[in-house]
Amino acid sequence: MTISNRVRNAMEDSSWVRRMFEEGEELKRLHGAEKVFDFSLGNPELEPPPSLKRELKALADHPVIGMHRYMPNSGYSETRRLIAQFLTEETGLPFEEKHLVMTVGAAGGLNVAFKALLDAGDEVIVPSPYFMEFKFYIDNAGGQLRLVETNEDFSLNLMAIEHAIGKQTKAVLINTPNNPTGVVYDEKSLEGLGRLLKKKSQELGRTIYLITDEAYRRIVFDQFKLPAAFHYYPHALRVTSHSKDLALPGERIGYVAVSPRCEAVDEMMSALIFANRTLGFVNAPALMQRLVAPLQRNSVNVREYEEKRDLLYQALRSFGYQVVKPQGAFYLFPKAPIEDDLTFIKALQAKRILTVPGRGFGKPGYFRIAYCVARKVIEGALPGFKEVAQEYGLRPADA
Amino acid sequence: MTISNRVRNAMEDSSWVRRMFEEGEELKRLHGAEKVFDFSLGNPELEPPPSLKRELKALADHPVIGMHRYMPNSGYSETRRLIAQFLTEETGLPFEEKHLVMTVGAAGGLNVAFKALLDAGDEVIVPSPYFMEFKFYIDNAGGQLRLVETNEDFSLNLMAIEHAIGKQTKAVLINTPNNPTGVVYDEKSLEGLGRLLKKKSQELGRTIYLITDEAYRRIVFDQFKLPAAFHYYPHALRVTSHSKDLALPGERIGYVAVSPRCEAVDEMMSALIFANRTLGFVNAPALMQRLVAPLQRNSVNVREYEEKRDLLYQALRSFGYQVVKPQGAFYLFPKAPIEDDLTFIKALQAKRILTVPGRGFGKPGYFRIAYCVARKVIEGALPGFKEVAQEYGLRPADA
Repeated sequence: MTISNRVRNAMEDSSWVRRMFEEGEELKRLHGAEKVFDFSLGNPELEPPPSLKRELKALADHPVIGMHRYMPNSGYSETRRLIAQFLTEETGLPFEEKHLVMTVGAAGGLNVAFKALLDAGDEVIVPSPYFMEFKFYIDNAGGQLRLVETNEDFSLNLMAIEHAIGKQTKAVLINTPNNPTGVVYDEKSLEGLGRLLKKKSQELGRTIYLITDEAYRRIVFDQFKLPAAFHYYPHALRVTSHSKDLALPGERIGYVAVSPRCEAVDEMMSALIFANRTLGFVNAPALMQRLVAPLQRNSVNVREYEEKRDLLYQALRSFGYQVVKPQGAFYLFPKAPIEDDLTFIKALQAKRILTVPGRGFGKPGYFRIAYCVARKVIEGALPGFKEVAQEYGLRPADA
Repeated sequence: MTISNRVRNAMEDSSWVRRMFEEGEELKRLHGAEKVFDFSLGNPELEPPPSLKRELKALADHPVIGMHRYMPNSGYSETRRLIAQFLTEETGLPFEEKHLVMTVGAAGGLNVAFKALLDAGDEVIVPSPYFMEFKFYIDNAGGQLRLVETNEDFSLNLMAIEHAIGKQTKAVLINTPNNPTGVVYDEKSLEGLGRLLKKKSQELGRTIYLITDEAYRRIVFDQFKLPAAFHYYPHALRVTSHSKDLALPGERIGYVAVSPRCEAVDEMMSALIFANRTLGFVNAPALMQRLVAPLQRNSVNVREYEEKRDLLYQALRSFGYQVVKPQGAFYLFPKAPIEDDLTFIKALQAKRILTVPGRGFGKPGYFRIAYCVARKVIEGALPGFKEVAQEYGLRPADA
């Protein structure tokens, strides 16, 4: 008896991811890191916008007394006030600072939300393919993950969701823009989902919550305007972070925003704040709360991601890969030409291209490409993608 | 059905703390904040040392490319290397960076340690009085808190610990210097505890872990040298933070260090890193990891706390209060002159003095004074402490 059996089992379940990672490291040792095209991790290569660097310098030059102390567990009042103002402008809803809890990134925010909501055995419905960490987050709070299929283009399958809802359902979690598919859910989808959740909540005589993981919210392309779930359903929690829009993933700064129209919203906020405290986060990092507060309208140059998507998407299509053109995040999720995604990504590895098999997202037969990398990594990998396509007999698509 | 029932019940259990806090806020509204002597929270009034401000300014002036990105879930290699070097100098044990996980403060570190260690129903033995958040942290991982008495001077009662150890015992958690008592455990106590845990581990045929919460490690007085539990027991985890020594509580930066001699240490580290990732911390805040790395030998001016302890301790004794003279942290934990600590702290409140009743630490009949406040707050409160002592018939002690 050493470590927790539960943790040992969970680690074994996910140990093939570790194996992938280690094989990638081995490749880099063999060939040199610059000869390996690493699309395996969503660790953005962009730097934070200049506005953030200016804010940091201003604070370092003129430190504020008490700026590293504890503040309320929900975060600085001023930070929450500015975000509430931003949300009100976006949605037209009367957001106030009391509707916000600053969190240790979106991962922290999701753990806080699940802790606040779930009792043992409560189910959370998640469309698949999905970010597999969700499973651990739900399990941490004693809940059960219930996966449902999406449509072929990875859009929401409302029938599948309706079918999965039962007396154990406490929440539906959607991730838009989506990891791993890059797909965003449009107004029609969210409207339909809102209508469905209203109907089912009424039928079952209790509220089903809608949690939206919007960590990639600002990374959208083609002038697409990401709709707010808040418009279509009152019992909605938005979990997001500044990891992607301000390129601060290592700093762990995000928030949970609850609709002002949510049932018993004050009790909900108390539960979220209690969870933030007792899960050991205590509060979101103080300095980062201060830095991001005035930068709600700032973001990295999203156009750079859009250009990389275009480059890679068009090339993969031209090589014959089947791939949905995504409108957000920085992932492509093509179909592997054979069922066994693990064998296929090893063929890519042989060309020094690192990707993640679809089974890492609950969807064998596909693979994920994280293109938040330098353009030259994408360009360098294209010949390898092409050669593997030819090996597997893919036929170039019409231009 | 709205929030989790479990969370609702937990919030109700601790709602009297909230009531204290709200009554304090009401007092401040009535009399003005400067007329209220607030000893309720352990939120240090000291600023970080100048060395930290210099490091921050240097980084803001010369940002390092990639300094806000993800790094390994265990934290920067360089930060862990420097801390390992510091621990090796302190203990003589061969610490390496692989024995460390950087965490979101000590609260994050404790949650990570419990998650890595505990299966449902596993017990963690904790000497009381104790920091009541421990109960939530243990519960988060499905474990059970088992309290044991301390001696009258709040030193470890090894017989009580021995009596409590059984087949469900997975770990013993000690907090030194202690919140709420300020007491530190000396070499003899730790040696005795180490011997006991070795004996019982052998008897029971499995390892009992020793977790030391050392968040106040650097805040010790009277030239006391805090001994390292690592010397007395191999299966030991130290959880600490830079909240107190570098006055960064809002920044959430700490670490878990595991003894190089711990059984199956590599598996333990994997479990801790897995827990750090999947509990939603992901990693300790990047910028703070960089800032604290070279400051392992720096700290706030501990002498200031020592002077405040002396001032308050001597005054309280002279008014007739029974109080153990603590050698660390920034708390005093006097006996209330009546059994009902809640009634007594209300008498102090009538003098605009805010403290926390002992029942908030599992020890009714006492009260906690957090003296990490400006000297003038202590001086301003002395007349009130004296008047209440007289009201309750305490007799001034001999000088």
